[in-house]
Amino acid sequence: MSDHPKSHGQKAIGTKSHGRLSIRASMQPRDLMAEPQVRGAWTAQIVTLFPEAFPGILGLSLTGRALAEGLWNLRTTDLRPFGIGKHRNVDDTPAGGGAGMVIRADVMDAALREAGAALPIIYLSPRGKPFTQARARELALGPGMTLICGRFEGVDQRVLDAHNVEEISIGDYVLTGGELAAQVLIDATVRLIPRVLGNQDSLAEESFSDGLLEHPQYTKPALWEGRAIPDVIMSGNHAAIASWRRDMAERLTKERRPDLWRAYEERRKR
Amino acid sequence: MSDHPKSHGQKAIGTKSHGRLSIRASMQPRDLMAEPQVRGAWTAQIVTLFPEAFPGILGLSLTGRALAEGLWNLRTTDLRPFGIGKHRNVDDTPAGGGAGMVIRADVMDAALREAGAALPIIYLSPRGKPFTQARARELALGPGMTLICGRFEGVDQRVLDAHNVEEISIGDYVLTGGELAAQVLIDATVRLIPRVLGNQDSLAEESFSDGLLEHPQYTKPALWEGRAIPDVIMSGNHAAIASWRRDMAERLTKERRPDLWRAYEERRKR
Repeated sequence: MSDHPKSHGQKAIGTKSHGRLSIRASMQPRDLMAEPQVRGAWTAQIVTLFPEAFPGILGLSLTGRALAEGLWNLRTTDLRPFGIGKHRNVDDTPAGGGAGMVIRADVMDAALREAGAALPIIYLSPRGKPFTQARARELALGPGMTLICGRFEGVDQRVLDAHNVEEISIGDYVLTGGELAAQVLIDATVRLIPRVLGNQDSLAEESFSDGLLEHPQYTKPALWEGRAIPDVIMSGNHAAIASWRRDMAERLTKERRPDLWRAYEERRKR
Repeated sequence: MSDHPKSHGQKAIGTKSHGRLSIRASMQPRDLMAEPQVRGAWTAQIVTLFPEAFPGILGLSLTGRALAEGLWNLRTTDLRPFGIGKHRNVDDTPAGGGAGMVIRADVMDAALREAGAALPIIYLSPRGKPFTQARARELALGPGMTLICGRFEGVDQRVLDAHNVEEISIGDYVLTGGELAAQVLIDATVRLIPRVLGNQDSLAEESFSDGLLEHPQYTKPALWEGRAIPDVIMSGNHAAIASWRRDMAERLTKERRPDLWRAYEERRKR
């Protein structure tokens, strides 16, 4: 692989101590870039043909503020420079025939070597194990992750085998590439890192925290276009409110997600 | 609601006939903006506190090219100007107590009225019905969709009821906001719109097209670091290759997704 240039694909998107920095749209990826990365902070490392897609939405709001405050690191490795020949081709036709193009094992391997072996490698793919809130919690406790963003028909199976790559799916649908899926994985995980979310209480009450969908929410005004907030919610009786919310969460889960409801009932029986 | 300013929150991100325009990272949302929108083209309309998050990744690659070519329209409606008072507050504390903030019914209602009633309204929420490839196909056949991006603890239930809003979830995890989920919905749907994907054959072979996960893929080189492409794939025997791929797809589905496997077997029995 003398064909592969070294140490040029990698970019750090990171980390300055700005305290209460407000992240605006005009602060694009390159503005958020800084060296060195915060040692020991949870790190997302992305191998992608579209490094310019990062941080994207992750540079806004809570995740963007946490990135600027050094609560996590974001690095991208551009796959393109590892491509073959003058045009730096990263893909070729599927062996055995078929539509589309497949990313080459040697090209992806070179990018993964550049990215380093410190983090578990995850390939975003509809063939993967479904991503869940429980998995997000596990990932948030770890050191971070290296994410492979696929394009086209996928990645040569041999490089996935060679690097013991875990495949994760964010849902049963097909995207044009893995970049959005990577951002979903990162967003769901980063918000669980301590101090990223202002109010940690929110985590305890949200959907999936107890295996149920969340109950309906209401706020002012008490009467809106003839629609009142349910009496019990306005009663001030905290036990009654908690009981109503639990009932609604159970009813909603039963109606919309029989799969979650069955799992919830199983756990309750134990 | 005299408090709500009129016709100021809406931005069109669209559409010029550039033919073979190459979309680069430096072409940010405002560069892609143009009037008028292409009449009759599939339209995504986003109600969000972060209009600057769009088009984001959707402005790159296939979806970006299709946007520039007028194969679909993207509009954002900024929720903020519809907020209450000097600070344009869009949220308030949950009625009945609890952590976080809830988006007000009157504020969201005003934004939805501005967005218009031409498209079905979808609220991205972990409480929603799971998004699937089948739903993406349905949505691609329709006129488009208005997407509500939540933040905080959610949206007042009454405005969801009043507008007959459908709730859709992209997966069993919690995100900091609905913007990434909206982009996932749009990406999965837009690529199914005719002429967006260069090679329509890819659609027939990919994961979920027949209810199975996709078989492993290989490409050149035939031998990589001691790892060979399976003999059958290199045999040139098309029937044998098809049979191997089907076997692998079935085995993978059975191993990783017993839920999909059961549904597949049910359909086969009929």
